[in-house]
Amino acid sequence: MYGESHGKSLGVLIDGCPSGIALNEKDFAEDLERRKGGKKGTTSRREPDRPHILSGVFRNRTTGSPILIFFENTDTKPRAYEAMKDAPRPGHADFVARVKYGGFHDYRGGGHLSGRVTLGLVAAGVLAKKIIHPVAVRSRLAEAAGETDIDGAVSAAIKKKNSIGGVVECEAENIPLGLGEPFFDSVESLLSHIIFAIPAVRAIEFGSGFQAARMTGSEHNDVYIDKEGRTRTNHAGGINGGITNGNPLFFRVAVKPTPSIPQPQQTIDLRTGQKRRLSVSGRHDICIALRVPVIVEAAVAIVLADLMALVQKVPRVVT
Amino acid sequence: MYGESHGKSLGVLIDGCPSGIALNEKDFAEDLERRKGGKKGTTSRREPDRPHILSGVFRNRTTGSPILIFFENTDTKPRAYEAMKDAPRPGHADFVARVKYGGFHDYRGGGHLSGRVTLGLVAAGVLAKKIIHPVAVRSRLAEAAGETDIDGAVSAAIKKKNSIGGVVECEAENIPLGLGEPFFDSVESLLSHIIFAIPAVRAIEFGSGFQAARMTGSEHNDVYIDKEGRTRTNHAGGINGGITNGNPLFFRVAVKPTPSIPQPQQTIDLRTGQKRRLSVSGRHDICIALRVPVIVEAAVAIVLADLMALVQKVPRVVT
Amino acid sequence: MYGESHGKSLGVLIDGCPSGIALNEKDFAEDLERRKGGKKGTTSRREPDRPHILSGVFRNRTTGSPILIFFENTDTKPRAYEAMKDAPRPGHADFVARVKYGGFHDYRGGGHLSGRVTLGLVAAGVLAKKIIHPVAVRSRLAEAAGETDIDGAVSAAIKKKNSIGGVVECEAENIPLGLGEPFFDSVESLLSHIIFAIPAVRAIEFGSGFQAARMTGSEHNDVYIDKEGRTRTNHAGGINGGITNGNPLFFRVAVKPTPSIPQPQQTIDLRTGQKRRLSVSGRHDICIALRVPVIVEAAVAIVLADLMALVQKVPRVVT
Amino acid sequence: MYGESHGKSLGVLIDGCPSGIALNEKDFAEDLERRKGGKKGTTSRREPDRPHILSGVFRNRTTGSPILIFFENTDTKPRAYEAMKDAPRPGHADFVARVKYGGFHDYRGGGHLSGRVTLGLVAAGVLAKKIIHPVAVRSRLAEAAGETDIDGAVSAAIKKKNSIGGVVECEAENIPLGLGEPFFDSVESLLSHIIFAIPAVRAIEFGSGFQAARMTGSEHNDVYIDKEGRTRTNHAGGINGGITNGNPLFFRVAVKPTPSIPQPQQTIDLRTGQKRRLSVSGRHDICIALRVPVIVEAAVAIVLADLMALVQKVPRVVT
Repeated sequence: MYGESHGKSLGVLIDGCPSGIALNEKDFAEDLERRKGGKKGTTSRREPDRPHILSGVFRNRTTGSPILIFFENTDTKPRAYEAMKDAPRPGHADFVARVKYGGFHDYRGGGHLSGRVTLGLVAAGVLAKKIIHPVAVRSRLAEAAGETDIDGAVSAAIKKKNSIGGVVECEAENIPLGLGEPFFDSVESLLSHIIFAIPAVRAIEFGSGFQAARMTGSEHNDVYIDKEGRTRTNHAGGINGGITNGNPLFFRVAVKPTPSIPQPQQTIDLRTGQKRRLSVSGRHDICIALRVPVIVEAAVAIVLADLMALVQKVPRVVT
Repeated sequence: MYGESHGKSLGVLIDGCPSGIALNEKDFAEDLERRKGGKKGTTSRREPDRPHILSGVFRNRTTGSPILIFFENTDTKPRAYEAMKDAPRPGHADFVARVKYGGFHDYRGGGHLSGRVTLGLVAAGVLAKKIIHPVAVRSRLAEAAGETDIDGAVSAAIKKKNSIGGVVECEAENIPLGLGEPFFDSVESLLSHIIFAIPAVRAIEFGSGFQAARMTGSEHNDVYIDKEGRTRTNHAGGINGGITNGNPLFFRVAVKPTPSIPQPQQTIDLRTGQKRRLSVSGRHDICIALRVPVIVEAAVAIVLADLMALVQKVPRVVT
Repeated sequence: MYGESHGKSLGVLIDGCPSGIALNEKDFAEDLERRKGGKKGTTSRREPDRPHILSGVFRNRTTGSPILIFFENTDTKPRAYEAMKDAPRPGHADFVARVKYGGFHDYRGGGHLSGRVTLGLVAAGVLAKKIIHPVAVRSRLAEAAGETDIDGAVSAAIKKKNSIGGVVECEAENIPLGLGEPFFDSVESLLSHIIFAIPAVRAIEFGSGFQAARMTGSEHNDVYIDKEGRTRTNHAGGINGGITNGNPLFFRVAVKPTPSIPQPQQTIDLRTGQKRRLSVSGRHDICIALRVPVIVEAAVAIVLADLMALVQKVPRVVT
Repeated sequence: MYGESHGKSLGVLIDGCPSGIALNEKDFAEDLERRKGGKKGTTSRREPDRPHILSGVFRNRTTGSPILIFFENTDTKPRAYEAMKDAPRPGHADFVARVKYGGFHDYRGGGHLSGRVTLGLVAAGVLAKKIIHPVAVRSRLAEAAGETDIDGAVSAAIKKKNSIGGVVECEAENIPLGLGEPFFDSVESLLSHIIFAIPAVRAIEFGSGFQAARMTGSEHNDVYIDKEGRTRTNHAGGINGGITNGNPLFFRVAVKPTPSIPQPQQTIDLRTGQKRRLSVSGRHDICIALRVPVIVEAAVAIVLADLMALVQKVPRVVT
């Protein structure tokens, strides 16, 4: 993934994709639209998000060579960020980026540290979903601001000029048994690694998650009901010992409220060290969690595509 | 990390350690003792857990070459597992290991998929803590079975012949600002990756975690109080945009109840497909969470040691 | 590196570059021109090779975020390759690409397996050379067709309608002592790894190379002349035990003659298995080695930039 | 690979091995004996080199978990190296190790930077050869000191109290077509990477190698003789475009003369900067190249085992 929120372009370079997969620019439309998250509670910035496949596809099939998927930024307002240059937005990565990159960072709209960069992740996910078929990944926003009436929660937040967080659930079915390693590359390790690359994610729980910490072993253990390893319950979220067990993969993700809110906040002027009032201009999401489900799906599909490329169905015996 | 629960040896091979760090076998004693978790609620297996440094240390200093830390297993009872060979313990990795490794896995006590293998992780953590000094990592069991009176919770579980889970908290101080990358190698990505390699971990939340999903932006945003980026609150858990912000790192981990419990359970006989009663023999933990804090500390220290080796204090300017 | 010889675009995505390095599109001109290798003995295809920096640079300085450098293909003649589709060119990767990618490969001009893709490598090298300054890498064509009169050798080859190979020498100065690891990531390992990614490279030798196999220890050993480790001779090519020793790095690379030659050759028709005469159309290099020196420089600069990012000047002592 | 020449132990930790491969300690005997290189022209140090398999094997079959193969050092003479501590042997890694590791390196016999550490590589090779069966790798010493009468060359060197180099050839048959990637992970890249981890290797050439630089395209191109890609000649050494072509893999490696020779040499005292005479004590090889063939075989088998684990026999088509 490369690119900046208000730069010339952004996108993704995908290496290691098998050859022969049918792919054209229309395949991306549905997931890119879902990533916009609807009009209510999301940014007023309007981008066509039209993907250009610039390499690695020949006659509408992947060739096995690196695939560059390229998007242009069209609706940029870089000037909106000049006033905030020396006044970091609370809760935002403005401050760490300034220090880490020695002042050379593109500060306009967060630069590379912007949720806009997930456009490339979603594009890669479209391809990954094709690779892992018939494994199916589905994700949805289960609650916003603690409410399951999500539309109502968003309306209330807009009224209060505040942003809200949410919880995203993800399930994947038809996963082969045996993916993942017991140590270091457990399936939870690989999934959480990529999920925490999604901006605004604060937490992840697999299966019964934090609830498991309050359960007893006899409550939590999933009883086997057949020789294939199907279980009556799925507290394990489809994973034992870091390895998929053939039951559906299930996890939940906490998304924090966006730091940029339409009300004044206090911050520090980094030149003077003095307190300062900050009104965030620019166009921002009230409920970024609305846009996260399709990003989570993409992330999961990418991890599974990598894992499934490595599966050895039958252990070799050499004597 | 290598080794099995009931095999000849287990331990860890550490590569990339700087030279010149004082290290001898006594340095491991405290953390290895903490890993035993006390006598109440933990396994009755008694292992001396004496570390042998077999390479990479010369005259009590690290040389810069790979360091092998080696432990022997002494108190093994491999026969205890013969009866369970074809009857997978519910909630345990027995079943997935059998399928993934085609029946060649060492099934005695979980083999390589045993919590015992974390011995190597703790040993590596002792060294990592020295490397990252004066960064200090501290972890503790905050609750067991939903109770903060942990001793009471364990006693109750022993009485009920059941296992219980818990929540482990971890904090790290004096962390340099700027560790981690915005995408894919965010600090949360790297930490969760290794934390989910610890057996029995089900969930991780940074800063305000799942609670953040119910907060508004104005509640959640941490207000800066000085030019160094110190904040009044720490809902971010010390991380913005995947990058450390100089405030204390804070996260919480959910530990599930051990699957092996001292009461009969139902399972399936994998040869016949018939239901079967299973009484788990062997020696097991009632509350494995008691032993997790020092393992979490080790994991965090290892990640930080890797990250800090890469820090460039001052960005280069080449004209 | 991504892209194809006759596709829409090609280029390189660079991650991990420090922030603050001055970079603009004119910086690439000199090395890109050198890569064309002059007009005599090189392809008649004429490409402007104009670089577009599409991300990771803000106000003419690197930001620390991924940098996409993008080139368009303009002078393509894809039809020239239709006749050769089922008749693999001897000595060329046509055949292996067809099998490896199951017939989905972009066969026009070698697709992704084309020397044209080194354009991205040279572009990355321009940046790497800035990062490693004042380390200086210089490479030159030392012989072609076994002759040091390279111009004459090329003229003779053009007359005979045949291609010729050559030997490229490379030297790098001001290299810090201590780069590289004794095993697996020796400096020779890292350099040869990337050098053998350059199409047409057949061999690499460091220092006295194959000649060393015929020397005695007393002839080959480089005698130290000062405490800084300078040596009277440099048979080691600046490397001992896989680690740079502070003397100039020196190695030589063998470049094979291009497989595409302007005279008919015998091959097999892959549909029928019958012998067939093949006249290679398209525009090809008589002496590809003319273009290799600047590519070798780029490769070396990239490896050194990675290694120098990891140097720890002073070993840490923690007690 | 871990361990030191005169430390407590050395060996190798192997991860990622498939389960179910028959393995016991006797399987190592033949290759470990070949690594000793015979008695003439090799070190007088006598080590039993008995392998101990300490994890990852259960009932004489690999389990799929990490395998630790462990050797003890028994015939050490660490005192022999005290006199040379401040006087680096010319041509040896003594000097760079001292600087790189800040004086903390185990200097006795080269410590970790010793040819003795290849014991672990050969042990891993024994297992890798089983994994890649029926692919067969064979390597031999083709010349020593420029002579094909190798026994005579060694006798002459012993008389002259000097060390000599040599050329090792390696061939591998039955290799699947399609291993390797066009850029960065070409088969030559992967092989040269590991081959240059073998101490004393100075150069590598694939197929016609440096000779190719003096050939014309019509001489060098390998003519196809059937639809399976078999070729009349093998100037390519079995590789086109970085990818195996199904013909035998062939390459040659140059081994330098050992730096430690039984005659006095000049060096510098690193404390004073003064010239000094150095008589190397300890037990050393006259012709280390005698021991290299089996190490090269091991290295090739390891690379092929990794590559073959990733092969996708049939490209996937997803529509």
